[in-house]
Amino acid sequence: MAYEDPAAAEQAFYDAFRQLDLAQMKEVWMDSDDASCIHPGGELLQGSEAILKSWAAMFNDSMPPRVDHRLIQASSDNHLAVHTVEEKVSSGAGHRRAIILATNIYAWASDGWRLLAHHASLPLVETTRDPPEEPETGKLH
Amino acid sequence: MAYEDPAAAEQAFYDAFRQLDLAQMKEVWMDSDDASCIHPGGELLQGSEAILKSWAAMFNDSMPPRVDHRLIQASSDNHLAVHTVEEKVSSGAGHRRAIILATNIYAWASDGWRLLAHHASLPLVETTRDPPEEPETGKLH
Repeated sequence: MAYEDPAAAEQAFYDAFRQLDLAQMKEVWMDSDDASCIHPGGELLQGSEAILKSWAAMFNDSMPPRVDHRLIQASSDNHLAVHTVEEKVSSGAGHRRAIILATNIYAWASDGWRLLAHHASLPLVETTRDPPEEPETGKLH
Repeated sequence: MAYEDPAAAEQAFYDAFRQLDLAQMKEVWMDSDDASCIHPGGELLQGSEAILKSWAAMFNDSMPPRVDHRLIQASSDNHLAVHTVEEKVSSGAGHRRAIILATNIYAWASDGWRLLAHHASLPLVETTRDPPEEPETGKLH
Protein backbone atom coordinates (compact mmCIF):
# COMPACT_ATOMS: atom_id res chain seq x y z
CA MET A 1 0.00 0.00 0.00
CA ALA A 2 1.19 3.47 -0.81
CA TYR A 3 0.05 6.83 0.49
CA GLU A 4 -0.71 9.22 -2.29
CA ASP A 5 0.25 12.35 -0.39
CA PRO A 6 1.75 13.37 2.95
CA ALA A 7 -1.71 14.01 4.40
CA ALA A 8 -2.75 10.41 3.72
CA ALA A 9 0.42 9.10 5.34
CA GLU A 10 -0.19 11.36 8.33
CA GLN A 11 -3.76 10.13 8.73
CA ALA A 12 -2.53 6.53 8.59
CA PHE A 13 0.14 7.26 11.19
CA TYR A 14 -2.34 8.67 13.70
CA ASP A 15 -4.87 5.94 12.92
CA ALA A 16 -2.21 3.34 13.69
CA PHE A 17 -1.37 5.13 16.95
CA ARG A 18 -5.03 5.39 17.94
CA GLN A 19 -5.77 1.75 17.14
CA LEU A 20 -2.46 0.39 18.47
CA ASP A 21 -2.04 -1.15 15.03
CA LEU A 22 1.58 -2.16 14.67
CA ALA A 23 1.19 -3.56 11.16
CA GLN A 24 -0.09 -0.24 9.91
CA MET A 25 2.58 1.62 11.84
CA LYS A 26 5.15 -0.48 10.00
CA GLU A 27 3.46 0.30 6.70
CA VAL A 28 3.56 4.04 7.36
CA TRP A 29 7.23 4.32 8.25
CA MET A 30 9.90 4.53 5.60
CA ASP A 31 11.85 1.27 5.76
CA SER A 32 15.25 2.88 6.08
CA ASP A 33 18.22 3.37 8.36
CA ASP A 34 17.65 7.09 7.79
CA ALA A 35 14.28 7.04 9.53
CA SER A 36 14.33 8.76 12.91
CA CYS A 37 11.98 9.17 15.84
CA ILE A 38 12.14 11.23 19.02
CA HIS A 39 9.38 10.38 21.47
CA PRO A 40 8.51 13.03 24.08
CA GLY A 41 11.44 13.22 26.50
CA GLY A 42 13.15 10.41 24.68
CA GLU A 43 16.42 9.81 22.97
CA LEU A 44 16.93 9.73 19.25
CA LEU A 45 15.91 6.45 17.66
CA GLN A 46 17.46 5.78 14.29
CA GLY A 47 16.37 3.24 11.70
CA SER A 48 12.94 1.74 11.21
CA GLU A 49 13.77 -1.39 13.20
CA ALA A 50 14.53 0.52 16.42
CA ILE A 51 11.58 2.84 15.81
CA LEU A 52 9.05 0.05 15.33
CA LYS A 53 10.39 -1.72 18.41
CA SER A 54 9.63 1.41 20.45
CA TRP A 55 6.08 1.60 19.14
CA ALA A 56 5.58 -2.11 19.82
CA ALA A 57 6.67 -1.63 23.44
CA MET A 58 4.35 1.33 23.80
CA PHE A 59 1.40 -0.47 22.25
CA ASN A 60 2.01 -3.49 24.44
CA ASP A 61 1.36 -1.55 27.65
CA SER A 62 -1.51 0.55 26.47
CA MET A 63 -5.23 0.89 26.23
CA PRO A 64 -6.23 2.52 22.94
CA PRO A 65 -5.73 6.24 23.52
CA ARG A 66 -7.75 9.12 22.20
CA VAL A 67 -5.58 10.92 19.70
CA ASP A 68 -6.64 14.04 17.87
CA HIS A 69 -4.24 15.76 15.56
CA ARG A 70 -4.36 19.11 13.90
CA LEU A 71 -2.06 20.21 11.12
CA ILE A 72 -0.72 23.66 11.90
CA GLN A 73 1.73 24.25 9.10
CA ALA A 74 2.90 22.34 6.05
CA SER A 75 5.75 22.87 3.62
CA SER A 76 6.50 20.52 0.80
CA ASP A 77 8.74 19.89 -2.14
CA ASN A 78 8.62 17.12 -4.72
CA HIS A 79 9.98 14.40 -2.48
CA LEU A 80 9.92 15.85 1.01
CA ALA A 81 7.22 17.39 3.19
CA VAL A 82 7.31 18.91 6.67
CA HIS A 83 4.25 19.08 8.90
CA THR A 84 3.97 20.86 12.21
CA VAL A 85 1.21 19.13 14.14
CA GLU A 86 -0.55 19.61 17.45
CA GLU A 87 -1.48 16.27 19.00
CA LYS A 88 -4.01 15.89 21.80
CA VAL A 89 -3.56 12.55 23.45
CA SER A 90 -5.45 11.02 26.34
CA SER A 91 -5.85 7.55 27.75
CA GLY A 92 -9.25 5.97 27.29
CA ALA A 93 -10.39 6.63 30.85
CA GLY A 94 -8.53 9.81 31.66
CA HIS A 95 -9.69 13.40 31.76
CA ARG A 96 -6.31 14.80 31.01
CA ARG A 97 -5.22 15.60 27.54
CA ALA A 98 -1.57 15.89 26.80
CA ILE A 99 -0.93 18.55 24.20
CA ILE A 100 2.11 17.53 22.24
CA LEU A 101 3.85 19.44 19.46
CA ALA A 102 5.31 17.31 16.73
CA THR A 103 7.30 17.81 13.58
CA ASN A 104 6.57 15.09 11.06
CA ILE A 105 8.68 14.60 7.95
CA TYR A 106 7.30 12.68 5.01
CA ALA A 107 9.36 11.47 2.08
CA TRP A 108 8.46 10.08 -1.31
CA ALA A 109 9.42 6.44 -1.70
CA SER A 110 9.13 4.71 -5.06
CA ASP A 111 5.51 3.79 -4.43
CA GLY A 112 4.17 6.68 -2.40
CA TRP A 113 4.73 8.84 0.65
CA ARG A 114 5.92 7.50 3.97
CA LEU A 115 6.92 8.87 7.36
CA LEU A 116 10.65 9.55 7.51
CA ALA A 117 10.90 11.33 10.85
CA HIS A 118 8.74 12.09 13.86
CA HIS A 119 9.93 14.52 16.54
CA ALA A 120 7.54 15.03 19.46
CA SER A 121 8.07 17.23 22.51
CA LEU A 122 7.08 16.63 26.10
CA PRO A 123 3.45 17.59 26.63
CA LEU A 124 1.84 20.57 28.14
CA VAL A 125 -1.00 18.99 30.14
CA GLU A 126 -4.54 20.32 29.91
CA THR A 127 -7.07 19.20 32.53
CA THR A 128 -10.82 19.25 32.10
CA ARG A 129 -12.93 20.59 34.95
CA ASP A 130 -14.50 17.31 36.00
CA PRO A 131 -12.37 15.13 38.22
CA PRO A 132 -11.49 11.75 36.78
CA GLU A 133 -14.17 9.15 37.49
CA GLU A 134 -11.73 6.30 37.57
CA PRO A 135 -7.99 5.91 37.70
CA GLU A 136 -6.24 6.58 34.48
CA THR A 137 -4.70 3.63 32.76
CA GLY A 138 -2.53 3.27 29.75
CA LYS A 139 0.72 4.80 28.84
CA LEU A 140 0.70 7.77 26.61
CA HIS A 141 2.75 8.42 23.56
CA MET B 1 23.53 37.65 2.24
CA ALA B 2 22.44 34.21 1.15
CA TYR B 3 23.51 30.79 2.33
CA GLU B 4 24.53 28.54 -0.51
CA ASP B 5 23.41 25.31 1.10
CA PRO B 6 21.58 24.11 4.23
CA ALA B 7 24.89 23.37 5.96
CA ALA B 8 25.98 27.00 5.60
CA ALA B 9 22.67 28.20 6.99
CA GLU B 10 23.00 25.78 9.90
CA GLN B 11 26.51 26.95 10.69
CA ALA B 12 25.30 30.57 10.64
CA PHE B 13 22.38 29.69 12.93
CA TYR B 14 24.61 28.11 15.58
CA ASP B 15 27.21 30.88 15.22
CA ALA B 16 24.47 33.43 15.87
CA PHE B 17 23.34 31.45 18.93
CA ARG B 18 26.90 31.13 20.25
CA GLN B 19 27.68 34.80 19.75
CA LEU B 20 24.26 36.11 20.83
CA ASP B 21 24.18 37.84 17.46
CA LEU B 22 20.61 38.89 16.82
CA ALA B 23 21.33 40.50 13.45
CA GLN B 24 22.73 37.26 12.13
CA MET B 25 19.88 35.28 13.69
CA LYS B 26 17.51 37.50 11.74
CA GLU B 27 19.50 36.90 8.57
CA VAL B 28 19.35 33.14 9.00
CA TRP B 29 15.61 32.82 9.51
CA MET B 30 13.20 32.79 6.61
CA ASP B 31 11.25 36.05 6.78
CA SER B 32 7.84 34.42 6.69
CA ASP B 33 4.66 33.79 8.62
CA ASP B 34 5.28 30.10 7.90
CA ALA B 35 8.47 30.06 9.95
CA SER B 36 8.10 28.14 13.21
CA CYS B 37 10.16 27.56 16.32
CA ILE B 38 9.70 25.30 19.34
CA HIS B 39 12.21 25.98 22.09
CA PRO B 40 12.84 23.18 24.60
CA GLY B 41 9.69 22.85 26.72
CA GLY B 42 8.14 25.78 24.92
CA GLU B 43 5.05 26.49 22.93
CA LEU B 44 4.90 26.79 19.20
CA LEU B 45 6.06 30.16 17.92
CA GLN B 46 4.85 31.04 14.46
CA GLY B 47 6.17 33.72 12.14
CA SER B 48 9.63 35.22 12.07
CA GLU B 49 8.62 38.24 14.15
CA ALA B 50 7.56 36.13 17.17
CA ILE B 51 10.54 33.86 16.70
CA LEU B 52 13.10 36.65 16.64
CA LYS B 53 11.48 38.24 19.68
CA SER B 54 12.05 35.00 21.59
CA TRP B 55 15.71 34.87 20.60
CA ALA B 56 16.13 38.52 21.55
CA ALA B 57 14.69 37.83 25.02
CA MET B 58 16.98 34.85 25.42
CA PHE B 59 20.08 36.73 24.28
CA ASN B 60 19.24 39.62 26.58
CA ASP B 61 19.61 37.48 29.70
CA SER B 62 22.58 35.46 28.67
CA MET B 63 26.30 35.12 28.75
CA PRO B 64 27.61 33.69 25.49
CA PRO B 65 27.08 29.94 25.80
CA ARG B 66 29.21 27.14 24.49
CA VAL B 67 27.29 25.51 21.70
CA ASP B 68 28.52 22.50 19.81
CA HIS B 69 26.35 20.93 17.19
CA ARG B 70 26.64 17.66 15.36
CA LEU B 71 24.63 16.77 12.30
CA ILE B 72 23.21 13.29 12.75
CA GLN B 73 21.04 12.87 9.69
CA ALA B 74 20.16 14.96 6.66
CA SER B 75 17.56 14.60 3.93
CA SER B 76 17.07 17.11 1.21
CA ASP B 77 15.13 17.93 -1.88
CA ASN B 78 15.50 20.85 -4.29
CA HIS B 79 13.91 23.42 -2.01
CA LEU B 80 13.64 21.77 1.38
CA ALA B 81 16.13 20.10 3.71
CA VAL B 82 15.71 18.38 7.07
CA HIS B 83 18.54 18.06 9.56
CA THR B 84 18.49 16.08 12.78
CA VAL B 85 21.06 17.68 15.05
CA GLU B 86 22.52 17.00 18.48
CA GLU B 87 23.27 20.23 20.30
CA LYS B 88 25.53 20.43 23.34
CA VAL B 89 24.94 23.67 25.15
CA SER B 90 26.55 25.00 28.29
CA SER B 91 26.83 28.37 29.94
CA GLY B 92 30.25 29.96 29.90
CA ALA B 93 31.07 29.05 33.50
CA GLY B 94 29.11 25.85 33.94
CA HIS B 95 30.26 22.28 33.94
CA ARG B 96 26.96 20.94 32.79
CA ARG B 97 26.21 20.36 29.19
CA ALA B 98 22.63 20.12 28.10
CA ILE B 99 22.24 17.64 25.29
CA ILE B 100 19.40 18.78 23.11
CA LEU B 101 17.93 17.06 20.08
CA ALA B 102 16.74 19.36 17.35
CA THR B 103 15.06 19.04 14.00
CA ASN B 104 16.02 21.92 11.72
CA ILE B 105 14.22 22.59 8.47
CA TYR B 106 15.88 24.70 5.79
CA ALA B 107 14.11 26.07 2.74
CA TRP B 108 15.30 27.67 -0.45
CA ALA B 109 14.41 31.32 -0.71
CA SER B 110 15.00 33.25 -3.91
CA ASP B 111 18.56 34.12 -2.90
CA GLY B 112 19.68 31.10 -0.92
CA TRP B 113 18.85 28.77 1.94
CA ARG B 114 17.34 29.90 5.19
CA LEU B 115 16.02 28.35 8.39
CA LEU B 116 12.29 27.67 8.14
CA ALA B 117 11.73 25.70 11.32
CA HIS B 118 13.59 24.75 14.49
CA HIS B 119 12.15 22.17 16.88
CA ALA B 120 14.25 21.46 19.97
CA SER B 121 13.43 19.09 22.84
CA LEU B 122 14.08 19.47 26.53
CA PRO B 123 17.63 18.46 27.34
CA LEU B 124 19.12 15.39 28.82
CA VAL B 125 21.74 16.84 31.17
CA GLU B 126 25.28 15.53 31.18
CA THR B 127 27.56 16.46 34.10
CA THR B 128 31.33 16.39 34.05
CA ARG B 129 33.15 14.84 37.03
CA ASP B 130 34.60 18.04 38.43
CA PRO B 131 32.27 20.10 40.56
CA PRO B 132 31.56 23.60 39.25
CA GLU B 133 34.16 26.12 40.36
CA GLU B 134 31.76 29.00 40.34
CA PRO B 135 28.04 29.45 40.15
CA GLU B 136 26.60 28.99 36.73
CA THR B 137 25.26 32.02 35.01
CA GLY B 138 23.38 32.56 31.85
CA LYS B 139 20.19 31.08 30.60
CA LEU B 140 20.43 28.23 28.22
CA HIS B 141 18.66 27.76 24.97
